[in-house]
Amino acid sequence: MLERLGENAKAAARALAVADTSLKNGALLAAADLLEAETEAILASNAEDIEYGKRAGLSEALLDRLKLDRARVKGFADGMRDVAALPDPVGRVLGETVRPNGLRLVKVAVPIGVIAVIYEARPNVTADAAALCLKAGNAVILRGGKEAINSNKTIAETMRRAIEGAGLPADCVQLVADTSRESAAALMRLNGYVDVLIPRGGAGLIKSVVENSSLPVIETGAGVCHIYVDKAADPRMAADIIFNAKTSRPSVCNAAECMLIHRDIAEAALPLIAEALKTKNVEIRGDRRTLELAPGAVPAREDDWGREFGDYIIASKVVEDMDEAMEHIYRYGTKHSECIVTQDLQAAARFQKHVDAAAVYHNASTRFTDGGEFGLGAEIGISTQKLHARGPLGLNELTSMKYIVYGSGQVR
Amino acid sequence: MLERLGENAKAAARALAVADTSLKNGALLAAADLLEAETEAILASNAEDIEYGKRAGLSEALLDRLKLDRARVKGFADGMRDVAALPDPVGRVLGETVRPNGLRLVKVAVPIGVIAVIYEARPNVTADAAALCLKAGNAVILRGGKEAINSNKTIAETMRRAIEGAGLPADCVQLVADTSRESAAALMRLNGYVDVLIPRGGAGLIKSVVENSSLPVIETGAGVCHIYVDKAADPRMAADIIFNAKTSRPSVCNAAECMLIHRDIAEAALPLIAEALKTKNVEIRGDRRTLELAPGAVPAREDDWGREFGDYIIASKVVEDMDEAMEHIYRYGTKHSECIVTQDLQAAARFQKHVDAAAVYHNASTRFTDGGEFGLGAEIGISTQKLHARGPLGLNELTSMKYIVYGSGQVR
Repeated sequence: MLERLGENAKAAARALAVADTSLKNGALLAAADLLEAETEAILASNAEDIEYGKRAGLSEALLDRLKLDRARVKGFADGMRDVAALPDPVGRVLGETVRPNGLRLVKVAVPIGVIAVIYEARPNVTADAAALCLKAGNAVILRGGKEAINSNKTIAETMRRAIEGAGLPADCVQLVADTSRESAAALMRLNGYVDVLIPRGGAGLIKSVVENSSLPVIETGAGVCHIYVDKAADPRMAADIIFNAKTSRPSVCNAAECMLIHRDIAEAALPLIAEALKTKNVEIRGDRRTLELAPGAVPAREDDWGREFGDYIIASKVVEDMDEAMEHIYRYGTKHSECIVTQDLQAAARFQKHVDAAAVYHNASTRFTDGGEFGLGAEIGISTQKLHARGPLGLNELTSMKYIVYGSGQVR
Repeated sequence: MLERLGENAKAAARALAVADTSLKNGALLAAADLLEAETEAILASNAEDIEYGKRAGLSEALLDRLKLDRARVKGFADGMRDVAALPDPVGRVLGETVRPNGLRLVKVAVPIGVIAVIYEARPNVTADAAALCLKAGNAVILRGGKEAINSNKTIAETMRRAIEGAGLPADCVQLVADTSRESAAALMRLNGYVDVLIPRGGAGLIKSVVENSSLPVIETGAGVCHIYVDKAADPRMAADIIFNAKTSRPSVCNAAECMLIHRDIAEAALPLIAEALKTKNVEIRGDRRTLELAPGAVPAREDDWGREFGDYIIASKVVEDMDEAMEHIYRYGTKHSECIVTQDLQAAARFQKHVDAAAVYHNASTRFTDGGEFGLGAEIGISTQKLHARGPLGLNELTSMKYIVYGSGQVR
C-alpha cells in the first residue's frame, strides 16, 4: 500500500524536478484559490474531526490546534501565495570551478525528490508542508495524526485537484489515509522511495522517528533557549529581551526557558527583569542568589535546568562568569538558540564563537529564530541537527545539489 | 564502554571546534612525521594482521587491501600533509543578510562535532579519515574491521600521541578496540554522542548501517555509471571515454558499467569502442544489436543491467533515442555518475537537466568523480544520498553551520 504511494511519489517527483517555475507557481496559486473556494467543505470536515475529538476527550489545547475557521483557511491560501512569490530554489548555481584539465564543474541546486512528513493534529501542516515541498520541486507524502484525518483529506484532495488542473501530477501531494501506528512505522522504513523524512510535532514523535526510521531524517526538535546577561550588559535591554523571549509566545521552541545572570550585574538587572516579567505573571524559578534579588521568585529544582516549560515560567541562575554560563548552556542547552546581552563586543564574539547552537544571538531576542524572521520566507520546521540544515528550514533547505560537468573529451 | 568513548569524543570536539587553524595543522604535520618515524612498528602490527588473515583464509584481494609497506605508510603521511595544506573549512562565511529590523545574520561554517566512521579492512582509512575529520574540527570515533585491528591500533595510537604532543586532546581520534558485531551495532545507536555516522565499505556494510543506525548517516554507496553515446557523438571520443571509464580502474565506484548507444551511431561507434576495449580484454555483454556490431560480444542477461561488475566487463545496449537511454538510467542507475557523449549542446543540456545523479557529465569520463579531481583536495568517501552532501565528501562537507546574529536590542 505505502509502496504504491512511494511509486506514485517517485513518478510525480520526476516530472516536478524539471517543471518550470511558472508551472509550479501556477499550481500553488490554483491550490490557494481552490482552498478558499472550498472553505465550506474544509470546515465541514473539520467539524467532524472536532466532534470526534470532543467525544474522544481531547484536551482544550489540542482541540484549539485542530480547529479551523474561515480566517485559518484563508491563512493557508495566503501562505501558499507567499510561497509562490518566493524565488525558485531549484537551479540556483551554488558554485563553479574550472579544473586545470579544462573540466568545468557547476554545482546546481536540484530537488531532493520525495519528502515524507509525519505530523500530529495541526491540519495547517498539510497545506504548508505541501506548498513548500512543491515549490522546491519535491513530491510529498503526508502522514498526519488521526485527530485531523477528515480535515487533512479534504485539504489534500483539494490541493491535488488544483495541482492536476494546473498541469502537474496530482501525486505531487499524497496523504496517507491510514493513520494507524503501523502506517507511520512503515513510512519510516520506505527506503528506495522516500529521500528524506521530516517529523513535525512533540518530543515523543521526534524520538520515535529518530529511533525507528531507516530513512534520512531531518530532526526538528526541542528548544531550551538561554539568555546570558553579561556583566557589561545594559540592564534595561536585558529586561526587554528576556521579557520578549519569554512572554511573546511561551509555547514555541524559540522562547527562552532560562536566564543566566553575571553576578556583577545581578543586583542591577534582576529586579528590573523581575518587574518586567511580573506584568505577565511569569513565575521565576531561581537559585539562591536569584531569590535574594528577584521579588516573588520561587526556588528552582534540579530538573528545572534544561527544561522546556512552554509556559509563563522561567529558570534563573546567577553565575560567576561567562565561562560558567557557557558551561551551563553546554550541559542543558538543545543547540537551538542562545543569546548574550552585553555591550562588550569581545565578550559577545567569544560567546558567539564558543556556544554551539543553530543561532547564537548578541543583543536580540531568541524569538527571531524563524524562517520568516530570517528572511527565508516560510519554513517547514526548525532543524536542531547538524546534518544538511540547521535552524529554520526554508525552500533552499528543501533542495539537494548535483554537479554538472562540462568536458571536451577528458579522460583520467 | 562506547558511552565513555562518546563522552571523550564530545569533550575533545568541544576543544577542537574553537582550535586555531595553525594548531590543527601542527597536529596533522606532527602526526605525519610520527607515522613515518614509526613505520617499523606499523609494519610489524600489519604483519600480525596479515599472518592472522592468511590463517583465517582471507582472499588474495582482501590481503592486498590489508597489506602495508613503506610506500603506503609514507602515503598516509603525505596525505596528512596535503590535508594540512588545504584551507580550513571552519569559519567560512556562507552567507550574510541584514533584516529590515537591523538584525545582521551571518551564516558561518562550524564543525559537525563527533563523527563515527565504520569501515572494513583498509588500514589507510584510519589515517585518512582521522586527518580529514581533525582538519574540519571534528572528533572521530573509528571502528575498523577486525582483519586490520593491529595495524589500526598502532596507527591510531601514533596519531593520538602526535596530536597530544601538538597541544590538542588525544581523544580527537579514538579507535574502537572491540571489533565484534555488537560494538558496531552499539556505535550505530550512540545517539547523544555521535552527530553523524559514515560507513565506508561494501554494499553489505552500507545496507546494515542504513537499516540499523539511529544516527544521521551519510551513505556512501555503489556506483552503476552509464555512458550514453548520442547520435551526434564523435565516435572516437566516445571510444576513448568508454575505454577510460571502464578500464582505468574497474574496481572503483566511478567506473562505467554500461554503455547505451544511440541506434543512428551504433554502426559507426560500436566497432571502434569494441576495438578499444579489446586491448584490455574487456568482455562486452550486449543486447541483440550490440552482438551484431561489436565483434566478440556475448549476450547480456537481464541481471547484467544495473550491475556493478567491478571488473573488465561492460554491459551494452543500443537504444532508440535519448529518452530510452534516460529511462534506462532512471531504472538501473544508482545516482552516482552518468555521462552523455555528444556534439549537440542542446541534447547535452537536456540530458544534464533530466538525469538525477551526483555528477552528470558531458564529454568526459565518469572516473573524475573524486575529491582530488574535483579540487576538494581529499575525500572521505562519495555520497550517493541527497541529504547534506552529494558526490565527493571533502572538508567542506564535514562541516555544519550556525547563524551568528548581531542585534542592538531587537525584540519581536
